Amino acid sequence: MAADLSRRIVAEALGTAMLVAAVVGSGIMADRLTDDVAVALLGNTLPTGAMLVVLITILGPISGAHFNPAVTLVFALKREIGANAALAYLLAQVAGGLAGTFLAHAMFEQPILQIAETARTGSGQWLAEAVATFGLVFTILTGLRFRPDAIPWLVGLYITAAYWFTASTSFANPAVAIARAFSNTFAGIRPVDLPGFILAEFVGALLAMILAGWLLAEPIRQMKAAE
Amino acid sequence: MAADLSRRIVAEALGTAMLVAAVVGSGIMADRLTDDVAVALLGNTLPTGAMLVVLITILGPISGAHFNPAVTLVFALKREIGANAALAYLLAQVAGGLAGTFLAHAMFEQPILQIAETARTGSGQWLAEAVATFGLVFTILTGLRFRPDAIPWLVGLYITAAYWFTASTSFANPAVAIARAFSNTFAGIRPVDLPGFILAEFVGALLAMILAGWLLAEPIRQMKAAE
Amino acid sequence: MAADLSRRIVAEALGTAMLVAAVVGSGIMADRLTDDVAVALLGNTLPTGAMLVVLITILGPISGAHFNPAVTLVFALKREIGANAALAYLLAQVAGGLAGTFLAHAMFEQPILQIAETARTGSGQWLAEAVATFGLVFTILTGLRFRPDAIPWLVGLYITAAYWFTASTSFANPAVAIARAFSNTFAGIRPVDLPGFILAEFVGALLAMILAGWLLAEPIRQMKAAE
Amino acid sequence: MAADLSRRIVAEALGTAMLVAAVVGSGIMADRLTDDVAVALLGNTLPTGAMLVVLITILGPISGAHFNPAVTLVFALKREIGANAALAYLLAQVAGGLAGTFLAHAMFEQPILQIAETARTGSGQWLAEAVATFGLVFTILTGLRFRPDAIPWLVGLYITAAYWFTASTSFANPAVAIARAFSNTFAGIRPVDLPGFILAEFVGALLAMILAGWLLAEPIRQMKAAE
Repeated sequence: MAADLSRRIVAEALGTAMLVAAVVGSGIMADRLTDDVAVALLGNTLPTGAMLVVLITILGPISGAHFNPAVTLVFALKREIGANAALAYLLAQVAGGLAGTFLAHAMFEQPILQIAETARTGSGQWLAEAVATFGLVFTILTGLRFRPDAIPWLVGLYITAAYWFTASTSFANPAVAIARAFSNTFAGIRPVDLPGFILAEFVGALLAMILAGWLLAEPIRQMKAAE
Repeated sequence: MAADLSRRIVAEALGTAMLVAAVVGSGIMADRLTDDVAVALLGNTLPTGAMLVVLITILGPISGAHFNPAVTLVFALKREIGANAALAYLLAQVAGGLAGTFLAHAMFEQPILQIAETARTGSGQWLAEAVATFGLVFTILTGLRFRPDAIPWLVGLYITAAYWFTASTSFANPAVAIARAFSNTFAGIRPVDLPGFILAEFVGALLAMILAGWLLAEPIRQMKAAE
Repeated sequence: MAADLSRRIVAEALGTAMLVAAVVGSGIMADRLTDDVAVALLGNTLPTGAMLVVLITILGPISGAHFNPAVTLVFALKREIGANAALAYLLAQVAGGLAGTFLAHAMFEQPILQIAETARTGSGQWLAEAVATFGLVFTILTGLRFRPDAIPWLVGLYITAAYWFTASTSFANPAVAIARAFSNTFAGIRPVDLPGFILAEFVGALLAMILAGWLLAEPIRQMKAAE
Repeated sequence: MAADLSRRIVAEALGTAMLVAAVVGSGIMADRLTDDVAVALLGNTLPTGAMLVVLITILGPISGAHFNPAVTLVFALKREIGANAALAYLLAQVAGGLAGTFLAHAMFEQPILQIAETARTGSGQWLAEAVATFGLVFTILTGLRFRPDAIPWLVGLYITAAYWFTASTSFANPAVAIARAFSNTFAGIRPVDLPGFILAEFVGALLAMILAGWLLAEPIRQMKAAE
């Protein structure tokens, strides 16, 4: 990354804000326009996936485009980002996420401050969040090895899929989860359900780091006579 | 840009006409085929995003593929286009946009001349238009720095997202807004609401230019010991 | 093109067959599954656009991936394909298109031979077909100049848009139109309406050839002091 | 492929598991959220196509990203993979597919073990599966020749189309078919219907191998005076 830390922090905050505004805003829009929840989820999925491709492409060269504490943690454990910078990223992500929620509410002329009442809890939801975040981090780590230029598309497409195949609609991001706890709309989550989601997300991220570490350990070595 | 001014002007007019024909025409089609407004918006979003990718790819090398007075203004302020050419672009965009509206009406056998009656006003709408255009111009300016070949996809995907996450469905373009004022269909906007939209769009564009200017100021410098 | 004529002919027939099978088959599927015509059109649009990207990518290097007599005519007029080969292409496209219709019917256990009864006529429809084919050929000719590697995506995205913004849902292809006349399903067109469609398609193709010819006449020349 | 056999096997199992989890999980999600079957199929199609692009990009460099016994058989017949490795791939694909089904059930808090009751049989279905797998293998073999970097997108887009234009919604994969037999949900298939599907899939794959073999036999030779 070629930018100084202040610009990287701004990029993380701005990116997370735009991402959450897209998630929450499109949820409000979709929910208003239809009674068919699957149509609403389509109207929530497409903007989220599209926005991820855009944001990672344009902000990746500045900050790495984490927008996600689970991703920042993995890079910190891999010593690709220092502890102080990681902490600054984390704060920027949470602050940016909250700003994104407030911005979405302001655009749709809703109360700026809300507390979500949508229950999202139970073993199925937690497993789903772990799977969702496992897949996200695994996609990022393997993608960075083989096709770093494709990361924006890979992440956008992965989340597009994960919105549908995980029972939790794939938050997969502690900062976004916190931001969504402050929106009592389509994308909301009760604050009391946050700890389970966030814990599951970190567990999934760490499992992906372990598996990807093994799988990519010697990818360069030519296969000899294994067959 | 390698083309002479006459060809550039024709490219701007043609591109804006095709873009508006896609926006207005798909709105009419979608509105006719369904009673579910979210499904209709999907049927309006996909053609718009797809058309933007196509038009920017094929006309970008000729005119830069602005199709948008807010974009042209930013490039004029950055002195990447002269004042006379910028004015010619502006006129071509407005004229092309109107032609696109008329063409859509003709294809769907509607009265060619219409005045929209759809109210789009209020602080939420204006904020949404400022956000939408901020994001568009910010995407263009940062994308041009890091991945100029990806600009068609970035713009197409950004607008795909913005149709859903902004309360105004993201006009983000004064020429397109004017053209849509002459269509009393799904995509229409009352002429009396135009000034608020256009002002918000220019404000958003200028804010994006300022922020991108700061963020990209020294992106090449190697980060030293910031961490 | 590196293949001999027999392989090129087979590629044209196979590609047109797969394209028509996708158009007609997804129309039947969508029509069976929903009463919302806009949802059905979405279920018809996505497969068509996706299939075009695939077929043009994998068969383009063999035959040029015309799959369309209007495209073949334009390349014949530009002397990029000889008259005999063009005629062989045309026959392969029509035969392949018919095979695609029959294949779709067989898969969905419908009568193989059908005659469409869906009326598609009138000035709006004809204008729409001319616009649709103009846009298609203009996209191909300008795309070939500036981004030949992007042609599969450009055509797939353009048709995705044109299904929605043209009143005729963009046949834009005389061979496909003929094939669709033999399917009394979602994608059908009455045989009596074929001449109007086909004539409009060729008119649109020729207009695109003329405009693209002028617009691309001197794209390399550096702009001097035009501003 | 640069990885050793154990990593390749894990990649095949993991990839097939994620693919099946996406297919079965999104089917459950979509089915719960809507009564419109076409909307449900959209909600099943998008995640499947998106997941294929991701998985083939990130696991292709390790194992080749077959995830499909029909594909592995073709490469074994072309002697691009040895018999022992092919057998190991096959077992990994079936085991991974089953794990994917169980994972989807666990996330959605359904009984882990289920037997599908959805009848999918008859000549139309079998023809559809043969066509679907023919197209898939033909796309892979021609894509590998002309645009190997585009294979993930080609396969993702092809399956997106095939879900809609084939009467069977394009299983096109014996391991996925087996895994889906253990899910009595949207994506299920009765075990008794498996043999017909699997046989048709292998027939389609072999036909594609034969046709692609002929079509690509001399693609490099310059066309001389064929016209």
